[in-house]
Amino acid sequence: MDNYQEALEKVLNYVHTLDIEDKPLFDTIGQVLAEDVYSEFDLPLKDQAMPDGYAVISSDIAGASEENPVTLQIIETVRAGCLPKNRVKSGTAIRIMTGAVMPDGADCVVRFEFTDEPANKSGPNYNNPTEVKVYRAVDPGTGISKKGASVRKGMLVISKGITIGAAQISVLATIGKTMVRVFRRPTIAVISSGDELLELGETLTPGKSYNCNEMAIATLVSHYGGIPKVLGIAHDNEKSVTDKIKRGMRADAIITSGGVSKGDFDLVRSVIGKMGEVVFSRVEVGPGASVSFGYVHRQDDKEGRKAIPVFALAGPTVGCLINFEMLVRPSIFKMMGKSDIEHPVVKAIAKDAVPSKIPMTFTRWSRLEKGNGGYTVELNRIEKAGMLSAIGMANALTIIPRGTEVKEGDSIPVLPLDWT
Amino acid sequence: MDNYQEALEKVLNYVHTLDIEDKPLFDTIGQVLAEDVYSEFDLPLKDQAMPDGYAVISSDIAGASEENPVTLQIIETVRAGCLPKNRVKSGTAIRIMTGAVMPDGADCVVRFEFTDEPANKSGPNYNNPTEVKVYRAVDPGTGISKKGASVRKGMLVISKGITIGAAQISVLATIGKTMVRVFRRPTIAVISSGDELLELGETLTPGKSYNCNEMAIATLVSHYGGIPKVLGIAHDNEKSVTDKIKRGMRADAIITSGGVSKGDFDLVRSVIGKMGEVVFSRVEVGPGASVSFGYVHRQDDKEGRKAIPVFALAGPTVGCLINFEMLVRPSIFKMMGKSDIEHPVVKAIAKDAVPSKIPMTFTRWSRLEKGNGGYTVELNRIEKAGMLSAIGMANALTIIPRGTEVKEGDSIPVLPLDWT
Repeated sequence: MDNYQEALEKVLNYVHTLDIEDKPLFDTIGQVLAEDVYSEFDLPLKDQAMPDGYAVISSDIAGASEENPVTLQIIETVRAGCLPKNRVKSGTAIRIMTGAVMPDGADCVVRFEFTDEPANKSGPNYNNPTEVKVYRAVDPGTGISKKGASVRKGMLVISKGITIGAAQISVLATIGKTMVRVFRRPTIAVISSGDELLELGETLTPGKSYNCNEMAIATLVSHYGGIPKVLGIAHDNEKSVTDKIKRGMRADAIITSGGVSKGDFDLVRSVIGKMGEVVFSRVEVGPGASVSFGYVHRQDDKEGRKAIPVFALAGPTVGCLINFEMLVRPSIFKMMGKSDIEHPVVKAIAKDAVPSKIPMTFTRWSRLEKGNGGYTVELNRIEKAGMLSAIGMANALTIIPRGTEVKEGDSIPVLPLDWT
Repeated sequence: MDNYQEALEKVLNYVHTLDIEDKPLFDTIGQVLAEDVYSEFDLPLKDQAMPDGYAVISSDIAGASEENPVTLQIIETVRAGCLPKNRVKSGTAIRIMTGAVMPDGADCVVRFEFTDEPANKSGPNYNNPTEVKVYRAVDPGTGISKKGASVRKGMLVISKGITIGAAQISVLATIGKTMVRVFRRPTIAVISSGDELLELGETLTPGKSYNCNEMAIATLVSHYGGIPKVLGIAHDNEKSVTDKIKRGMRADAIITSGGVSKGDFDLVRSVIGKMGEVVFSRVEVGPGASVSFGYVHRQDDKEGRKAIPVFALAGPTVGCLINFEMLVRPSIFKMMGKSDIEHPVVKAIAKDAVPSKIPMTFTRWSRLEKGNGGYTVELNRIEKAGMLSAIGMANALTIIPRGTEVKEGDSIPVLPLDWT
């Protein structure tokens, strides 16, 4: 039986980064850049005013001070986005707003604060002044955002492999990038298995249980960047499971839940074996040890893949979602082209102890809380609140490696699940 | 001028948790529960088999061992989700799968592993055996998931205030909860300001720049749980800005970007002042100091609010998105009913120094990387790669408080921006 790290290594051997696609920028959020992006122009295109102020010739105001202001004639006002019509000659100044193109002749911008232009005069209804008193000398180049200061034509702006978030959207828009080349999102088929399953809204009777994994798995697939295709419940016969998996083969991966323990009617593993190969069928971790992984053969794949991975997760939620976090999440990330596929980890102080040494690696649904100067984590919620409430209140997973004992007050690594 | 913490406190005084709504479970992901959820039944409803095995009477197998197995007559096989038809009497056993309802008469389940049922015989085509040899004695109650073991009727399962993620979806589905009461998501109007702005796809000319904040802000609003309503570009005249803000007043908050420095045509703040009140108009933080916050009055609000908040963010992306993370993100979380509105923080080792003491609190777009045993952060990317690339490659923000010097190798708090 593999431990979790060995199992993950095997999984990642069978999971491959998907092909690339060109998409409109706004539709790429969360995807990974599949190209190095270079700027096609200098930004700014031309020298621009940095603060709001007066574009002047620095030698004109070389001796300016509060006591001996230099008075200049205002020949024009230039708004952001506009081009100056005039050239600044000695003795003149152009009122200029942040981002406006610098006029010829001027070699610096003196901010409003260093002139007699009071801040409260600003506004569109301000009567245009005809002259300005400058109270301070500034060096040539002051207050100018030089052509190419933000980025130079031909410069690498964002490297292949970076995940596109809000900052990247903004930067790519800034350089006028309308279409972006990214790694495709995986489509992931979600199948539930078991005659005991009821759809939400049906009446619960003894022995039956609601199909709770389907929606949770679909949620996680979306959250981590995949596109879930929910295929419903496979019944406890070989034909039904086979049919569902065949339908799932149009996707990039298949996730099943349930049907992987040792019962007569736990068919998923046997069907995977017949349609492909079972790579492993148990992992040394609890809960969720009865997770299998394999692949099924397919034909006519336009990307040339001959098999697609199947994650056969444990049926009980307590294990199923842990299986997902540990094995499926890194796989989705690899398919999407992400280089950092490890789960974020924070160190937290244990609020309670895991009293005895546990014979296998154990994962606890736990509650991570921020306190003064750090995080705390509560581990034994199942004992206190029952299984369902422990999961329902959890916002983190804590992995307790085999043979490890946790004492109250220990600083231990915890995997947060709710990071926005 | 407020520091960032003071500014945030003022903002949170004007931002309120929104009203509640009842929604189908699948549509509540990322929202916060507005009710304590109790279970309406015991789960399981009746005693169930925990492992696959044989339901027997414990006293029948009290002396069983490898050497002296006890042979019992198999009277029935019960699948998960099914009810047994027979009662277990002394000398008999019922083959039973995980999750099947326990038959009357039996008081324990002996797992297949402790019988002569070989694992490889399992499967739907297995010829039903007529008797089983049991090799081990087990105590009464063994292998039974008792009625109510997962949750008891009337028990609190998830408290008000918990954010609904995949685990909560699964737990709520398990207890048959189809409709859930949650705090409403905020609708947030997004307005860009400035005659210099071009829509993506237009030709860039000197002095103009692409409207890069709109899509980035909308992305962040969605990412943090809000619903963005993009209202486009307001032009540099009072009527245009006023009209856009009036349209935005149908939302729960308004975000503008640009138009908040001191230029003649920076109208946003003046319009907010006329339609309501400017609460603050600068924050002691760089970049992004020229951020304003206020509110505008509105009538006919069904939730009885008389004013809605307006975040007037800085125009340049480098500051605009920092303003969002620091002031808007916690506000969205408060509107959504979240109790933990602080940004996640990790400690990282500085890979470079911030050489001199900076006179104000400064935020760096930075790159957080996972190494052996921890995180590292690179701070001086703007100097090396230019502004745009530094933002484009960033996956974190580092806040350097006023008067703080960072030396290479220091352990400093960093705010990750890409946590999935």
